[in-house]
Amino acid sequence: MESYKPVWLKGAIILAINLANAGYKPVTIGLGERDFYVDIQSDTSLTLDEAKKFAKYSEVQFKVENNYINYNGIKIKIENSEINIPSSNPKYFEILNISTHHPEPTVQYVRIRGVAFETEEQLKDYLNWLEKAEETDHRLIGERLDLFSFHEEAGSGLVLFHPKGQIIRNELINYMREINEGMGYQEVYTSHVYKSDLWKISGHYTLYRDKLVLFNMEGDEYGVKPMNCPAHILIYKSKPRTYRDLPIRFSEFGHVYRWEKKGELYGLLRVRGFVQDDGHIFLREDQLKDEVKMLIKKTLEVWEKFGFKGEDVKVYLSTRPDESIGTDEQWEKATNALMTAMQELGLSFGIKEKEGAFYGPKIDFEIRDSLGRWWQMSTIQVDFNLPERFKLEYIDKDGSKKRPVMVHRAIYGSLDRFIAILLEHFNGRLPTWLSPIQVRILPISDEVNEYAEKILNELKKSKIRAEIDYAGETLSKRIKSAYDQGVPYIIIVGKREANEGTVTIRGRGNIEIKNIKFEDFLNRLKNEILNRDVEQTAIKTLKK
Amino acid sequence: MESYKPVWLKGAIILAINLANAGYKPVTIGLGERDFYVDIQSDTSLTLDEAKKFAKYSEVQFKVENNYINYNGIKIKIENSEINIPSSNPKYFEILNISTHHPEPTVQYVRIRGVAFETEEQLKDYLNWLEKAEETDHRLIGERLDLFSFHEEAGSGLVLFHPKGQIIRNELINYMREINEGMGYQEVYTSHVYKSDLWKISGHYTLYRDKLVLFNMEGDEYGVKPMNCPAHILIYKSKPRTYRDLPIRFSEFGHVYRWEKKGELYGLLRVRGFVQDDGHIFLREDQLKDEVKMLIKKTLEVWEKFGFKGEDVKVYLSTRPDESIGTDEQWEKATNALMTAMQELGLSFGIKEKEGAFYGPKIDFEIRDSLGRWWQMSTIQVDFNLPERFKLEYIDKDGSKKRPVMVHRAIYGSLDRFIAILLEHFNGRLPTWLSPIQVRILPISDEVNEYAEKILNELKKSKIRAEIDYAGETLSKRIKSAYDQGVPYIIIVGKREANEGTVTIRGRGNIEIKNIKFEDFLNRLKNEILNRDVEQTAIKTLKK
Repeated sequence: MESYKPVWLKGAIILAINLANAGYKPVTIGLGERDFYVDIQSDTSLTLDEAKKFAKYSEVQFKVENNYINYNGIKIKIENSEINIPSSNPKYFEILNISTHHPEPTVQYVRIRGVAFETEEQLKDYLNWLEKAEETDHRLIGERLDLFSFHEEAGSGLVLFHPKGQIIRNELINYMREINEGMGYQEVYTSHVYKSDLWKISGHYTLYRDKLVLFNMEGDEYGVKPMNCPAHILIYKSKPRTYRDLPIRFSEFGHVYRWEKKGELYGLLRVRGFVQDDGHIFLREDQLKDEVKMLIKKTLEVWEKFGFKGEDVKVYLSTRPDESIGTDEQWEKATNALMTAMQELGLSFGIKEKEGAFYGPKIDFEIRDSLGRWWQMSTIQVDFNLPERFKLEYIDKDGSKKRPVMVHRAIYGSLDRFIAILLEHFNGRLPTWLSPIQVRILPISDEVNEYAEKILNELKKSKIRAEIDYAGETLSKRIKSAYDQGVPYIIIVGKREANEGTVTIRGRGNIEIKNIKFEDFLNRLKNEILNRDVEQTAIKTLKK
Repeated sequence: MESYKPVWLKGAIILAINLANAGYKPVTIGLGERDFYVDIQSDTSLTLDEAKKFAKYSEVQFKVENNYINYNGIKIKIENSEINIPSSNPKYFEILNISTHHPEPTVQYVRIRGVAFETEEQLKDYLNWLEKAEETDHRLIGERLDLFSFHEEAGSGLVLFHPKGQIIRNELINYMREINEGMGYQEVYTSHVYKSDLWKISGHYTLYRDKLVLFNMEGDEYGVKPMNCPAHILIYKSKPRTYRDLPIRFSEFGHVYRWEKKGELYGLLRVRGFVQDDGHIFLREDQLKDEVKMLIKKTLEVWEKFGFKGEDVKVYLSTRPDESIGTDEQWEKATNALMTAMQELGLSFGIKEKEGAFYGPKIDFEIRDSLGRWWQMSTIQVDFNLPERFKLEYIDKDGSKKRPVMVHRAIYGSLDRFIAILLEHFNGRLPTWLSPIQVRILPISDEVNEYAEKILNELKKSKIRAEIDYAGETLSKRIKSAYDQGVPYIIIVGKREANEGTVTIRGRGNIEIKNIKFEDFLNRLKNEILNRDVEQTAIKTLKK
């Protein structure tokens, strides 16, 4: 891409001058990662079609002064000044995207993104490359599927989930709620803001200082939570606990904020605010092994649900580092409990010597995605530190006061990051249960709209997310559009289907089944979704 | 209560000195709203029984120096110095509560709360008063039912919901999700933190300045959201919208932060962080009346679900104030749309002349609770301002660009405040669908535990929140405990029930039905919960 950047910049200048000639007010041009952009100051936006009219070669005369293009007295700022403007003349343009933002509260810029090349072949090559990139880059998939967005006005690394993205979030949360409930977790919900005293007690104030968001109100210092554990500890401490109450397991889909460096932010993979499927267990030492065993089993069950199993999942035990707190006996007992838990499950695991946290040993899970990349996901961490700092207690059988052990755990880890990984792993074609639109109905002609609507109602009654794409475009275009938007099932209905009360089903990978009873498909589809199958079992079992 | 405070303070001094004599380290004494407290510095907490041992009269000698008690060289700070210490000697003590907090990161105080009186009668009167107060003060109900807590280390007005409180939150959210879905809303999820530029565009930066949480990171100013609207607007603007797309309805259970003054905070009724059942509609002017009509109907449906109807619900239309933005025509059209919507529904409503927001007219709903208090809850607000400030657009039929109208709406309003109102309105005895524990099973003796567990499993299979209170205490004590904790249904099983496969059911208000088939009750209970009945219809229909 780098070698095209000079000619893209030239393209941006041509587009900006064309816009200026039409009375628009271009203010800035610049280069993105994979395109150029032209900002015009305007209170109304442009449509793609409107913008395309100006995306064509024209002989332009301009001067370059410092970081500005001077065209007939109109000054346009160049935001990437390291590039020399080439004399080459791009003739093949494409406009990719139009958006708006506010550089100042009362001023709106319309940003036109595009590319420009000297030859038609280069443009075609680029568009092919882009189509492939769109399959494996979660940022592009997210835009194409209308899942989430980042905004200049919101700030870097702060994500807004659109309705379809929120459907994916809710499905993931619902599944994890079931998993947690099965293990006896109780869900809690806690504030995002706390007095910084809390972070001083927990130690995050010092340890997490550079990532902690702090602010002052009325003379007191507060912080936005980077972790949920201290809040869960306050709930634990809100009443006396006895040995009979343990293990106490709190879970929360807690939104935490960690101020990563701007340069390190990357789509949903690295953000400043994200939601953890967090959980904390307060238990007795003698309960640790069984608790960890249950957690490991459930974690592996979760990964298998998404298709990660066998060679694609690795488990590691991290042992005591040189600098650590806690007694030798505590470390030995806890490390043994983790190890025995894995052994009793017949699990093979690697050992990361001395890579435990300073506060206790831990188990990590890594998964390998369809592109062969390994991602560290789930974690189970024993903690001797926070119970000590917060002076946690339970009353033992003999009436004496004992300190519980604490375990931090997350299975998905960050919900946001996991969504990014899923989108790239599945190339945007998510399992049916996670798909924002699960079925799209294509009536071949308007004559069968009524039948299509009957099918739609049946699907909706079964809580299946379905919609109709009415016959405006050709059938093949509508099929491609459904495919591009990652819709797992297409139902095609024509006259024959309407007369016979059947449907034609298309799944992914060009699997098609013609004229089957709708009920047959519906029942299998309901099962596929209920079971959260990673494969398209509804159509596959029909095909058999 | 005020008149008892001097003698309570004396009681606190006596308790503190008794503790000092036993080797504990009292550091502070003071007065709460309805009790005294003694803080001792200690790394381990005390149980109620342990504390009670020191809560008794003893002859004490001490000096008062400034705001300190000096006892044998031990200095104990008095946090309420306006009160003179009386010579009277309280002899009747009660310890009410024990909690811990950290005045400094590494120091823990154990706070013992109690009362002390000169006569036994005064103590009895007080305990009776407290029992009644506990029925109607949501803060006491919340503590008794283990629903939520506030903490010194967290900060004032920042709430932590415990597992049982989160059950209520989730039930309310699930119900509102159904209501919203029925109206065509799409749920979104947005960051809590934004660049302050966003609040400058929206105008909150100036208008909401005193309640806005702001902070600086790497030279940029950010703010924690006091409202969700700007985030929803950014999603609206993330792609072009046409007249066919409207109305677009976004909903979010958005956690917002508004820094109320410390003195104005009050339990869940007035907090600094709370969750709104927020919604924003972007629509064409000609769609306003029908949209508002649908919203009013659904809002009244929601209030009726909680038992608020007829005389207990009032609706008001607030009209254009002297200072306002928008044209005469816009105001007239919008006000007419709201008024016509109400008229077509045959609704009688009051008019609050000139009490509309500066940005548009609005409809408010007020409800009257069981104590006769009116609460302003739901709101429907037309907004001409934000679409203008954010330059919102849609493309009309003729291809021209038009500005949509925006409507802000919330039905519950604040989820937190609504929970407080519900707890006080129902005296902690919530409708079954909202109750954290829906059924408690009391086996008369251990012999029938197996049968009790069978019943428990049946209930759990039907997703009913049930538990067993095994025969440790007497039956009447266990019945009282279930009653105190607001459990709607008690199932009593003895030998006869176990032999005959029946159960004895107790509902609220001493309704009891003996020896009925469990299945009969279960089916009615499932219906009661599914319908979200405000009354205990399961037992009432059985009784008929």
